[in-house]
Amino acid sequence: MKRLGIIISGRGSNMVALAEAVANGTVPGTEVAVVISNIPTAGGLELARERGIPTFVHDHRGVSREEHDRQMAEELQRRGVDLVCLAGYMRLLSPWFISEFENRILNIHPSLLPAFTGLDAQRQAFEYGVGYTGCTVHLVDRQLDHGPIVRQSVVPVLADDDVERLAARILAAEHRLYPEAVNLILSGRYRIEGRRVLAT
Amino acid sequence: MKRLGIIISGRGSNMVALAEAVANGTVPGTEVAVVISNIPTAGGLELARERGIPTFVHDHRGVSREEHDRQMAEELQRRGVDLVCLAGYMRLLSPWFISEFENRILNIHPSLLPAFTGLDAQRQAFEYGVGYTGCTVHLVDRQLDHGPIVRQSVVPVLADDDVERLAARILAAEHRLYPEAVNLILSGRYRIEGRRVLAT
Repeated sequence: MKRLGIIISGRGSNMVALAEAVANGTVPGTEVAVVISNIPTAGGLELARERGIPTFVHDHRGVSREEHDRQMAEELQRRGVDLVCLAGYMRLLSPWFISEFENRILNIHPSLLPAFTGLDAQRQAFEYGVGYTGCTVHLVDRQLDHGPIVRQSVVPVLADDDVERLAARILAAEHRLYPEAVNLILSGRYRIEGRRVLAT
Repeated sequence: MKRLGIIISGRGSNMVALAEAVANGTVPGTEVAVVISNIPTAGGLELARERGIPTFVHDHRGVSREEHDRQMAEELQRRGVDLVCLAGYMRLLSPWFISEFENRILNIHPSLLPAFTGLDAQRQAFEYGVGYTGCTVHLVDRQLDHGPIVRQSVVPVLADDDVERLAARILAAEHRLYPEAVNLILSGRYRIEGRRVLAT
């Protein structure tokens, strides 16, 4: 069995999508080993517990970033995690953590990277007036929203959209995309050429 | 009849696509009034002449950018041009020219803007490892590849692509997209809200 660790800060809707994809066989041969949150009140923690998934809360306040990350890493290693999935984790990871799990951390971002990095990407895209936006699953490197792209999904901006409707359609696309990307990485059937992630 | 002026520097394949769209009624009620090139040897000039389209060559060398642009503007105004279409024009336009034809200049760029501005956008996208790129028709403002987006078209990057194959598919998409964008702008059935170009 491959083992996923999922790190959240909020409602964890992508965590739930991954847990369901594991449960229904869309991501086969895999279990969610732990859900970690830096926010004790994150709504996703209860959703994980309801599914029988172990949770681990480690408040980031009052400790350095690296100390916080070392405690997360210890929990992930204790659980034998093969792949770390960020799912609405609202903190930057320390370079130490990124090295420790090199090419074993995925993030999902609600835009077609490299366009619209950072916060509120759906609104950035809407206000820019693009015809298409979407979402991206990428390997995490030391730059924000920057590592090699594993999978992208395109979402059109419709004539009668507002930011909320657009964001809801992007989120639905994220829930489909993340399990696909996890499958590719867990299968090991890819190679990285420059920045390109190529299925093999 | 609405009148287009098309400005090129090279082979002018998007100019030919627009001329054909005008000829076959895809862009109705319109004629190509003039094709302007800053390069006397541009291949597109001969292709325009073969189609009976007036051409105007104005070498940019030895004159200031604004002086060059004033002579282009004079020719465009003499021909009664309603809309200026850049089609592989490899120079920046002066602020004077952009003001003179405010919201009446279109450009086509081979990426999903705002990603991959500037030269060699197809290679930039390929090397970045995106899953999707495409092309964008936008109104020209004073920043490079920046004005309000009129239309975009998505082109997937395929597993066996190289830059040349990808660029060829993007170019084919450009040839379909540019006439659609010209139709919208010539129809006048749009409004600009912030950066968003909305059909009305």
